[in-house]
Amino acid sequence: MIEESQQRADEFYHLMNKRRSIRFFSREPVPRELVEKLVLTAGTGPSGAHTEPWSFVAVSDPDIKEQIRSIVEAEEEINYTKRMGRYRAGNTSTLTCDAFAGQMSAGPYKQHHHAPTPASHHQQSRLAQTPPCFKRGKQWVADLKAFKTTWTKEYLTEAPWILLIFKQPYSPLPDGRKVNHYYHEISTSISCGILLAAIQVGREGEGSGGSLQLFWKRFKVTIP
Amino acid sequence: MIEESQQRADEFYHLMNKRRSIRFFSREPVPRELVEKLVLTAGTGPSGAHTEPWSFVAVSDPDIKEQIRSIVEAEEEINYTKRMGRYRAGNTSTLTCDAFAGQMSAGPYKQHHHAPTPASHHQQSRLAQTPPCFKRGKQWVADLKAFKTTWTKEYLTEAPWILLIFKQPYSPLPDGRKVNHYYHEISTSISCGILLAAIQVGREGEGSGGSLQLFWKRFKVTIP
Repeated sequence: MIEESQQRADEFYHLMNKRRSIRFFSREPVPRELVEKLVLTAGTGPSGAHTEPWSFVAVSDPDIKEQIRSIVEAEEEINYTKRMGRYRAGNTSTLTCDAFAGQMSAGPYKQHHHAPTPASHHQQSRLAQTPPCFKRGKQWVADLKAFKTTWTKEYLTEAPWILLIFKQPYSPLPDGRKVNHYYHEISTSISCGILLAAIQVGREGEGSGGSLQLFWKRFKVTIP
Repeated sequence: MIEESQQRADEFYHLMNKRRSIRFFSREPVPRELVEKLVLTAGTGPSGAHTEPWSFVAVSDPDIKEQIRSIVEAEEEINYTKRMGRYRAGNTSTLTCDAFAGQMSAGPYKQHHHAPTPASHHQQSRLAQTPPCFKRGKQWVADLKAFKTTWTKEYLTEAPWILLIFKQPYSPLPDGRKVNHYYHEISTSISCGILLAAIQVGREGEGSGGSLQLFWKRFKVTIP
C-alpha cells in the first residue's frame, strides 16, 4: 500500500517537475470540453467555510482576447514605466470593457448553481484596476530584468484559451446583503494550484502547446 | 492526442473530486520519504519572479505536535470566544515555542539550497501571532456553526504528520539586506494546491488516512 503510494507520488512529482512558466504558446485549438474539465477540477479545491470564492472565465473568442490584451498591456506599461518605476501610488485607473466575461461555475458543490454561460456570451463589464501594493517600485522593475519581460503580452492573443481567474471577496444575497468569503485570495490561489496540476496531467506525453502562464492581474468585475 | 488529454483530464477530475476536507485522521504512520516527495512536488509551483517564497515544515515528533496543538488551540479559543465574537482588534499575542521547526527545502531549482534538516531537529523558534483581519467577527462564528467546528484540534496530535506551511514575505541576504518576495501569499497558496493534488494522487486507491486538513494559521517564525 505505502509502496504504491510512494510510486504514485514519485511519478506525480516527475510530471509536475516538468511544468514551466512559459510566455509562448501554440495556437493549436483546444476543445472547450477539455477546458471545462480543467476548470471543474480547479473547483474541487477547499475554501474558507466552503464559500468557493472564485470565478473562472474561459475566453477563446479572438476579439475578446484582443480587448483583454489591450487592457492588460496598457496597465502593464504603466506598471513598468511609471507605477512601479517612478510613481508609487495614486495611479488607480478605471477601465470599461464593454464585452467580455461569461461566468463559468467551477464547483460541483455550489449551492446557488449558476448555469455555465458561454465565454463568448457578451456582457457589459466594468473593470476597475486596483493599484498594486508593492513597496518598492524600482526594485520590482530591476527584479524582473532577468526574466526579460516587458508589458507586451503576445500570448494573450496567441493562446487558444485565456483563463481569467477572479477572487470573490463576497457574494450578494437576493435581499442585497453580502455574504463574506473568508480567505478568498488564499482559496482562489489554492484552486489555481490544482488547476495547474490538472493542466499538467492533461498534457502528459504531449508536445508544447498545453501549458499555462499564470498572470495574476487585479481587476474588479461588476456584472450588471 | 486531444482524446488522450481529455481522458486524463477526466480521470484526474474524478480523483480530485473525491478529496474532502476532514477533521479526523488515521494514526497509521506514513514514511518520511513519502512526505518529502509531496513537499518536493509542492515546490514545483510557480512563484512571483521565481522567489519560491515558502517554507514547509514537516512534523512527526509527538511532543512537538502536542506543543503545536496547545498553541493553536489556545489562539483558536480566543478567536471563537473573544477575537471574532466580541472584540475586534488589538488582541495580538506573542507566543514563544522553544522547540519545533526544522526547515525543509521545497524546490529543486532553489539557488541557495538549504540542506533538509530533520523535522525533529529542535530549534529555538519565536512565534508571533498576527491578528486575523476579518471584518465581521460575530458573522465568522455564525458561519462556522454549520461545520460544528470548535477550537479543539485533535487531528494535530492524531495525524502522523503535520505540515506547517509558511509564506516568506522576504528572504535575508548575507549582508543583512532583504530581498522582497512578490506575491508571496498567492504563490504559497498555489503551492498548497499542488500539494493537495500530490497527496490525493498518492492516496489513490487507499482507504482513509492520507488526506489533509488545510489549516491556515498566521504565524511569524524567526529562527535565530
